[in-house]
Amino acid sequence: MTAMNPSLHPLDDALALTAAGTDVFTGRTTEPYWNMVGPFGGVTAATLLQAVIQHPARLGEPLSLTVNYAGAVGEGPFELRATPVRTSRSTQHWWLQLVQPDKDGKARVMTTATAITAVRRQTWSATDLPMPEAPAPETCAQVEQAIPVQWVNRYAMRPVAGMPPRQWDGAERDSLTRLWVRDTPGRALDFVALAALSDVFYPRIWRRRALHVPAGTVSMTVYFHAGSALLAETGSGWLLAQARGQEYRNGFFDQTAQLWNQAGQMLATTQQIVYYKE
Amino acid sequence: MTAMNPSLHPLDDALALTAAGTDVFTGRTTEPYWNMVGPFGGVTAATLLQAVIQHPARLGEPLSLTVNYAGAVGEGPFELRATPVRTSRSTQHWWLQLVQPDKDGKARVMTTATAITAVRRQTWSATDLPMPEAPAPETCAQVEQAIPVQWVNRYAMRPVAGMPPRQWDGAERDSLTRLWVRDTPGRALDFVALAALSDVFYPRIWRRRALHVPAGTVSMTVYFHAGSALLAETGSGWLLAQARGQEYRNGFFDQTAQLWNQAGQMLATTQQIVYYKE
Repeated sequence: MTAMNPSLHPLDDALALTAAGTDVFTGRTTEPYWNMVGPFGGVTAATLLQAVIQHPARLGEPLSLTVNYAGAVGEGPFELRATPVRTSRSTQHWWLQLVQPDKDGKARVMTTATAITAVRRQTWSATDLPMPEAPAPETCAQVEQAIPVQWVNRYAMRPVAGMPPRQWDGAERDSLTRLWVRDTPGRALDFVALAALSDVFYPRIWRRRALHVPAGTVSMTVYFHAGSALLAETGSGWLLAQARGQEYRNGFFDQTAQLWNQAGQMLATTQQIVYYKE
Repeated sequence: MTAMNPSLHPLDDALALTAAGTDVFTGRTTEPYWNMVGPFGGVTAATLLQAVIQHPARLGEPLSLTVNYAGAVGEGPFELRATPVRTSRSTQHWWLQLVQPDKDGKARVMTTATAITAVRRQTWSATDLPMPEAPAPETCAQVEQAIPVQWVNRYAMRPVAGMPPRQWDGAERDSLTRLWVRDTPGRALDFVALAALSDVFYPRIWRRRALHVPAGTVSMTVYFHAGSALLAETGSGWLLAQARGQEYRNGFFDQTAQLWNQAGQMLATTQQIVYYKE
């Protein structure tokens, strides 16, 4: 992995892309966001979105992002292909791929994604899901990380409910988790950071079963409810992040999750389907 | 629109595809699933999934489907492109497009999608979301349709909670809806029918605001929890379908939804982001 550029925030360093032709960008994995066998899935999602954000033909701001984790991204350089396949007056549809050479030097698709950007208008707005009550982040203790991997150190996490089980004893329970979370070191929130934060939860099945089974995200979708003005208001403040599993069946489970800023404004909702073993 | 083939169930007629080369199929819209300015979004999703199901290189069964509604599909023929971009031992990643000629005869992408198919193994399974209590479908009355469009007549719908408002008076309320639903005439459930049913809910904003504002799905994701054996068990029985909005902000809202069979088994979870006008 390329050495970190110490003048940049680790997230900006991880998301540094170089334009390399029409609809093509190059980037590389970085060590601070490394997971067990590849980069943190959240940072891969953010990298794909970064290509959209930096694309000269982009219309509007991110509305929706679906990332499909087809293969483990390997250490080193990669190529991103970001193609606007359809642009209307107010929305734009994107097809995205992350490509790396395999052992024989043949380009292989490691990640696919679609994104939608949109020009938003001020309208009547409301929520059906107010932020749950939670003690102030300043009164909550920093979490001890459940897994010894690099990327978890890129986030300050203060759990409110549903920590990883202290005993891996197979005692089944509800999978709801709530935590305060933000980048560390602090960094003003933007769309790419929010995309990465959408994948910040440890696997629901670990809490559901109190068993440390292998698990990995297969597909994640993020809906952005915040525009850039609300993200700017949120700045480097804490987000309340909540996730809960829905169904666990024959090797795959899904979760739904929400992220609010400390003022109680919903920034994003997200869901994913996750592979698990046994 | 091509006249219905009376020997087929209307859904099978709508989803009839013809192989037209490597990764290419042709189909056409049909009148029984027409919505206001294009086909019912659920049947478009089902059509894209049908191309995966009929593709000779398919591995496993549907696990995940994301459909992005880029433009209104017009009356008449269309072309589907279904490409397996990455196949591993147990999962396969698909890139899908629905293409139609525009007024000048130029091929335009009307819908994009990604799908994942997977070979599932029997594992520990459980739910975090048991089916809610509901009166038996036989005791519930058939709904009077909220909108005078064709496709709603292709479903038997028996609401349990959260019907469309009787008065469009702007009285705000929670957007939760529950209904028993199935194809009519009856048809054994399969993946394509389940994909279509995932879009069966009237727009959450109509209930949330009691205002009949224009609204249309921009992107929908379906996670399939049922395999073909459970679908076969479910047969032509009733499904309990539940949907609720999450956030409504500046022209877009999202919903999460779940579909159980009458025995209380979760078949699919789904979410969508929807444009609305104000």
